[in-house]
Amino acid sequence: MSALSKILELHPDRLFAADPLQRDIARRLYARIQDLPIVSPHGHTDPRWFADNQNWDNATSLLLLPDHYVFRMLYSQGITLEQLGIRRRDGVAVETDYRKIFHIFAAHYHLFRGTPSRMWLDSVFHDVFGLRESLTPATADLYYDHINAALATEAFKPRALLDRFNIEVIATTEGALNDLKHHAKLKGTGFEKRVITTFRPDDVVDADRADFAANVQKLGDITGENTTTWQGYLQALRIRRAYFRDHGATATDHGHPTANTADLSLSEAEALFSRCLAGASAADAELFRGQMLTEMAGMSLEDGMTMQIHPGAHRNHNAVIFERFGPDKGADIPSPTEYVQALKPLLQKYGNEARLNIILFTLDETTYARELAPLAGHYPALKLGPAWWFHDSPEGMLRFRHQVTETAGFYNTCGFNDDTRAFLSIPARHDVARRIDCRFLAQLVAEHRLNEDEAHELAYDLTYRLAKQAYQL
Amino acid sequence: MSALSKILELHPDRLFAADPLQRDIARRLYARIQDLPIVSPHGHTDPRWFADNQNWDNATSLLLLPDHYVFRMLYSQGITLEQLGIRRRDGVAVETDYRKIFHIFAAHYHLFRGTPSRMWLDSVFHDVFGLRESLTPATADLYYDHINAALATEAFKPRALLDRFNIEVIATTEGALNDLKHHAKLKGTGFEKRVITTFRPDDVVDADRADFAANVQKLGDITGENTTTWQGYLQALRIRRAYFRDHGATATDHGHPTANTADLSLSEAEALFSRCLAGASAADAELFRGQMLTEMAGMSLEDGMTMQIHPGAHRNHNAVIFERFGPDKGADIPSPTEYVQALKPLLQKYGNEARLNIILFTLDETTYARELAPLAGHYPALKLGPAWWFHDSPEGMLRFRHQVTETAGFYNTCGFNDDTRAFLSIPARHDVARRIDCRFLAQLVAEHRLNEDEAHELAYDLTYRLAKQAYQL
Amino acid sequence: MSALSKILELHPDRLFAADPLQRDIARRLYARIQDLPIVSPHGHTDPRWFADNQNWDNATSLLLLPDHYVFRMLYSQGITLEQLGIRRRDGVAVETDYRKIFHIFAAHYHLFRGTPSRMWLDSVFHDVFGLRESLTPATADLYYDHINAALATEAFKPRALLDRFNIEVIATTEGALNDLKHHAKLKGTGFEKRVITTFRPDDVVDADRADFAANVQKLGDITGENTTTWQGYLQALRIRRAYFRDHGATATDHGHPTANTADLSLSEAEALFSRCLAGASAADAELFRGQMLTEMAGMSLEDGMTMQIHPGAHRNHNAVIFERFGPDKGADIPSPTEYVQALKPLLQKYGNEARLNIILFTLDETTYARELAPLAGHYPALKLGPAWWFHDSPEGMLRFRHQVTETAGFYNTCGFNDDTRAFLSIPARHDVARRIDCRFLAQLVAEHRLNEDEAHELAYDLTYRLAKQAYQL
Repeated sequence: MSALSKILELHPDRLFAADPLQRDIARRLYARIQDLPIVSPHGHTDPRWFADNQNWDNATSLLLLPDHYVFRMLYSQGITLEQLGIRRRDGVAVETDYRKIFHIFAAHYHLFRGTPSRMWLDSVFHDVFGLRESLTPATADLYYDHINAALATEAFKPRALLDRFNIEVIATTEGALNDLKHHAKLKGTGFEKRVITTFRPDDVVDADRADFAANVQKLGDITGENTTTWQGYLQALRIRRAYFRDHGATATDHGHPTANTADLSLSEAEALFSRCLAGASAADAELFRGQMLTEMAGMSLEDGMTMQIHPGAHRNHNAVIFERFGPDKGADIPSPTEYVQALKPLLQKYGNEARLNIILFTLDETTYARELAPLAGHYPALKLGPAWWFHDSPEGMLRFRHQVTETAGFYNTCGFNDDTRAFLSIPARHDVARRIDCRFLAQLVAEHRLNEDEAHELAYDLTYRLAKQAYQL
Repeated sequence: MSALSKILELHPDRLFAADPLQRDIARRLYARIQDLPIVSPHGHTDPRWFADNQNWDNATSLLLLPDHYVFRMLYSQGITLEQLGIRRRDGVAVETDYRKIFHIFAAHYHLFRGTPSRMWLDSVFHDVFGLRESLTPATADLYYDHINAALATEAFKPRALLDRFNIEVIATTEGALNDLKHHAKLKGTGFEKRVITTFRPDDVVDADRADFAANVQKLGDITGENTTTWQGYLQALRIRRAYFRDHGATATDHGHPTANTADLSLSEAEALFSRCLAGASAADAELFRGQMLTEMAGMSLEDGMTMQIHPGAHRNHNAVIFERFGPDKGADIPSPTEYVQALKPLLQKYGNEARLNIILFTLDETTYARELAPLAGHYPALKLGPAWWFHDSPEGMLRFRHQVTETAGFYNTCGFNDDTRAFLSIPARHDVARRIDCRFLAQLVAEHRLNEDEAHELAYDLTYRLAKQAYQL
Repeated sequence: MSALSKILELHPDRLFAADPLQRDIARRLYARIQDLPIVSPHGHTDPRWFADNQNWDNATSLLLLPDHYVFRMLYSQGITLEQLGIRRRDGVAVETDYRKIFHIFAAHYHLFRGTPSRMWLDSVFHDVFGLRESLTPATADLYYDHINAALATEAFKPRALLDRFNIEVIATTEGALNDLKHHAKLKGTGFEKRVITTFRPDDVVDADRADFAANVQKLGDITGENTTTWQGYLQALRIRRAYFRDHGATATDHGHPTANTADLSLSEAEALFSRCLAGASAADAELFRGQMLTEMAGMSLEDGMTMQIHPGAHRNHNAVIFERFGPDKGADIPSPTEYVQALKPLLQKYGNEARLNIILFTLDETTYARELAPLAGHYPALKLGPAWWFHDSPEGMLRFRHQVTETAGFYNTCGFNDDTRAFLSIPARHDVARRIDCRFLAQLVAEHRLNEDEAHELAYDLTYRLAKQAYQL
């Protein structure tokens, strides 16, 4: 190690409260659950990785290019996406020297101080790659070479890492029209129960999309149903759901701009569907998305799939970036989200069904104590997903537990989702959640609001059991 | 105690911060105020209890059936209200074996971990009934028998408990048409100053109610006023307010869906009232409720009654539950609530009156620092009520103090309200508030933001003096 | 010191967390930055003070009468503004006995317990005036005489205090029509680089104001432009911006009711401007303010001035107070503020400009984690201003850092603004910010989320470097 370099270490007490009493309890709780298998029921890793089991290429294209948390921060400080090698839709040339891009990242690594990205990345560097010096401009080459060399080995092939990371099950997410060929390829490998898909029908239920009618047509082609009729369309969705279940899916996922739901009569729904196929108004598209959430809840009651609702992102807020680089480039911004009126039609119809598992997420933390905990603390069909996206962070998780627990308890929540495409960071992300849950429980024990034996049981439940139960894994 | 049972204990430091410096200060503050008399200026106990002073019947019907905090949590986890013995409106049979219901409760007591209900119930078990083992399925019979035996004794009659709990005064809440016969019965018993009523006119000011016109007619019958006219209606309300004051009331209470107020001209108000009597539109009903808040503030200025405004609950969100079981079954959900525009008409008219006491509550914590503290830190007529309902909890109270104090100070707040029909839990609820206030003050002292002698004075004020002052007790 | 008086002391650890580990780290961080020069890039001191360098008159007119934090609290507890000597617009006599007013203040000093005003005032009493007894009714005369005597000395002249307070630069705020004569008088004194102005054009862009058309006419008179045309009006604003820059301004400031922006075509903008000059509707005035934010951003790109946007105050909520006493009397109330849709037109046009510095403020803390940190963590043109106004307080600053840092990092924030007209409190206000930032950093270090060497660097940046950079000082 050079004179200038700084040690990279992960302190065993990281993220626990500094107060000795709470820290000691947190250590005891964490010691018993830190090595539990990882259950990752909601994420965005590429199933091709596990199907083909090829080595990854280099540090930049694995760690930086797919991680919008990373390049949004760099972009906010004046570094262009072209400099970072993000491919332009219009074919304009961008940086392709991956080492150079890694140097830019190293030179700006201080920007991530205080962010979860910093913590996840340091964990990947330390635990996954065994690096013991901090990332700085001086160590950028060392990092780049070391990581690339590691990535070329057998031990860093995707399936080997599934084992090393102790991932019991991981769910990817595919669109309704996806052929699931990667999942199909896994059949018979012994990994088909560990790498499963999730049914995400946004592309065939969102009539705001330019390709909606074409997608619905494809849905008909794939299923052999006449999807120009409402009943044919619904039946085609049932067929696709069954196809996904056959590839491991136990859950559906719905990423809508709002939490609005609807419960239209058959004739209203038919007329709305026809209008949407012909080119929907914004209001019709919103109403149709809402109706489809209720329809999907009904199908979940039929086929038993867990239903996830992820509302509240204003997608592609930056039109210039969207035009040049496409979606998922760090320009999605949360919006205020209303749940009490929005969910009422769906809940009136299905909220009292104890067999139904609907998991709600939010980007609007103001709804935790005001709306979501009261709803989940009453309706048998509702549970709350963990702190999501911008709030998947130590502070975000603490706010979630502090604001939700008193009204919804622990047992109307569902454990942790990593929600990531950054595969190598999955152990770090689950470790953050485990540490923060132990920290929260330790505070309750230290303040004599919970017994320590109960806290041990809860730590196990929050780490492992509740996710398996909520997603039926 | 059997080998399997666990000790039930209430730690003397519970709810204080774990940090030794803060904890020590909190202990000193709490030691001086823990035994102060209970002032309960806003609640929902049944005045019949104190009037008739009969023994309660059994643990289930006293502790579980009236407590929507308890059965909403059980319901959220798939236990039906029928299993819990909640009476159906349509006469369909429900569970009537109270011991069996108590067993269901015991088997699911872990659901309450981390909730205030758990803390209140454990305090009742430990302090009121002297139980020393935790509630589990194994101890359910012991609990049920022990509690029932205690309830049959002289010491557990309502008035004896008023003494044992050191309740200096407790206010119940009655609708405007109530004959107050239970309060009347208390006259001459020595309890008439300790058990007082509160005037809650929602049933005669909410034109959304199906029985509004009938209620206004009854109001006329009771008072001898012609309540088909606006002036007669207002005069009838004045007469009822005087009647309530004669039964101890020092305050009114207004539970509206929003905080909207209005200040209409006489002719506008007359016309609106006529439309409402004839069957109000939703907009008219909302406007009328708003106008009536302003009218009530004017009457409070005349007769000196403290006015409480409790907005923001979406009542009976679950139509199925409402239809089968009626209101107050755990299906009320908070909604976002606006105050700045909503209160303006009332405040323009009466906000500068230093003689007027208007106490605001909220279910929308986002308004604490943004709207309520700035309003209460300016208008002489406004004070802030304590953290309410879903927020009547350790975390909720801490958020209240942390977000309100810097702008409104302590002296624009009003001490604690228990707001409960769970009579036996009243000492525990006040104790939670006392502990949390001492904890908050201790933090300020430990961080050298307040002197300890000031904190002692504030602890007394927050526990006792401010409630008496705000409610004129 | 009399037997009854209490010692006034400022504890060296004040505002640090009580936990010994965190406190020790905070002490170390603070020790290195506590004496850094004060950079005050946004405030409301009177430039006449520094231009004329006259002694202030007395404690009441310097410390109380201009401080709406102080008299809003007294007013909320029933003391009239007349009793406090606030001048009425209608000439009705008010209290003029300044000693008597100071006594009223002393008698109610307990109302400020737990508020930042209390902390700032105690710091002024202790550090600026050397008082060592607490303010009570018993010490009111001692205080009043001692402060007045000090104020009469050379050492308490404004420029002497600029030196004593180690203020490197302080920005005042002037309207677009201001002649900046006080700043002009400073030229050649050596203070012209230390006391600078800020361009605040609200009076010529807010068509809701009764004097809007007259102000635009004056703008034309001052600049020699034909401000009855859209192009002449814009050119006149450019001329005024240059004039302000010539008097030290490096920034503009925009205090709008909302964050709405617009990006109209030239012909739409021309037509809107004409309608506004003729007497704007509320909708036109709002649209015009929004268009002008975008125009101002464009001019900032031309001339390099930093742009500050301060939305969300409902001004003059109390009509009676406004009518009698005018604006800025403690009756401005924050409102819910939307940013994601509101800023979109401006950001679509200029958000990707890395050369542009737009600093956003908010009174709606719910937007910190939900909207502002995500926006500032993406758009190169955006940074976040510090916790503002009601949130310029220990708790408010902590909420800001806890809710913003994980998504926006530290480097999309801008250091501290004191935003005050209370000149003597400026060192205390900056000291509170320094202490709270060190406390927050110390927590991250103690929880192993940040290295201590990084925390030292950040403490320096947050205290000094980021403000200079964001405001180009």
